[in-house]
Amino acid sequence: MFVLSSPSGAGKTTLSRLLLEKDLNLKMSVSVTTRNKRPNEVEGRDYYFVDEASFRRRIDRNEFLEYAEVFGRLYGTPAEVVERQLDAGVDVLFDIDWQGTEQITTRCRGDVVSVFILPPSMAELEKRLRTRAQDDEETIRTRMSKASDEISHWHAYDYVMVNHDVEKSLQAIHAILQAERLRRVRQHGLEMFVDRLLSV
Amino acid sequence: MFVLSSPSGAGKTTLSRLLLEKDLNLKMSVSVTTRNKRPNEVEGRDYYFVDEASFRRRIDRNEFLEYAEVFGRLYGTPAEVVERQLDAGVDVLFDIDWQGTEQITTRCRGDVVSVFILPPSMAELEKRLRTRAQDDEETIRTRMSKASDEISHWHAYDYVMVNHDVEKSLQAIHAILQAERLRRVRQHGLEMFVDRLLSV
Repeated sequence: MFVLSSPSGAGKTTLSRLLLEKDLNLKMSVSVTTRNKRPNEVEGRDYYFVDEASFRRRIDRNEFLEYAEVFGRLYGTPAEVVERQLDAGVDVLFDIDWQGTEQITTRCRGDVVSVFILPPSMAELEKRLRTRAQDDEETIRTRMSKASDEISHWHAYDYVMVNHDVEKSLQAIHAILQAERLRRVRQHGLEMFVDRLLSV
Repeated sequence: MFVLSSPSGAGKTTLSRLLLEKDLNLKMSVSVTTRNKRPNEVEGRDYYFVDEASFRRRIDRNEFLEYAEVFGRLYGTPAEVVERQLDAGVDVLFDIDWQGTEQITTRCRGDVVSVFILPPSMAELEKRLRTRAQDDEETIRTRMSKASDEISHWHAYDYVMVNHDVEKSLQAIHAILQAERLRRVRQHGLEMFVDRLLSV
């Protein structure tokens, strides 16, 4: 499980997309949400869209690896979908905030790798939010205030990087992913490989 | 401190050289040895060549991060040289065996990253030893027997990889090095960076 967190505008969504294109053994975790579907979004690819009552029932049945309320909407990661991906030998990418990361890390102790992406400056962050022209003035102010809160949790992550340049940051995140796969403790076939090597 | 270990012939020396060319913030640790200088070797670049009495005095003065006897010759890593490199902000590469790795890891707990390189097969290892045509038949037999012993310690390393292809292995080792530098606990300037980021 590979977690990327950052305040909105720090480049997380772009980096996630590029990382998924670059690494075919990594798949995005698809969240369940109560927010409205945007025109370019596809059910089951971007999110599973449900109403609030349905979401609350899933909470009660403990079906989420993590869930959170953001700007009045609920977002959650369905445990079953992730487990199916992991069982198939696929690494799963999570684009979640610090609260979700904390929940996942607590629930799945051991095999979560988390990366926090910092903006070069708050001015740059605000500029990026305005450039993408997705939000009105009030939402931008709310996002900037939430950004400070999100950033204040950077110390709960395994890796931290400053996103000065998308290409370099992508390369760095990919290096982390590749390196973590080479950790001895994750290479379950290795014991047998070495046994065979030495038995000849 | 970045440790590469492998049995002779698994590609460690080639990979170390290529890694040093690729990453200019990484420098080789230069060992002290009692073995004879080979014609192409340079004092202070490849090794510091000393006699056995001088080596033993350094052991008594606790001047080595690690030392070992290999094929009747002594090899040691001088602590002072390494500390000078680390203080200058340079990462130091060690090309040492499992015993050296164990000593360094014990002595410098916390900031050692270790990688073990496995050959694809023992037949391939023997082929590589013969191809480089550096050793006589008896030395090759001794190296093959030492190789099995070395390989049996793979589980003491943080990362393990099989060297099927030099280019891919180089890329993988470089990914480990880059990733480890991005670990939060290693980025000492980050606390101040985030404080400044949030103070605006």
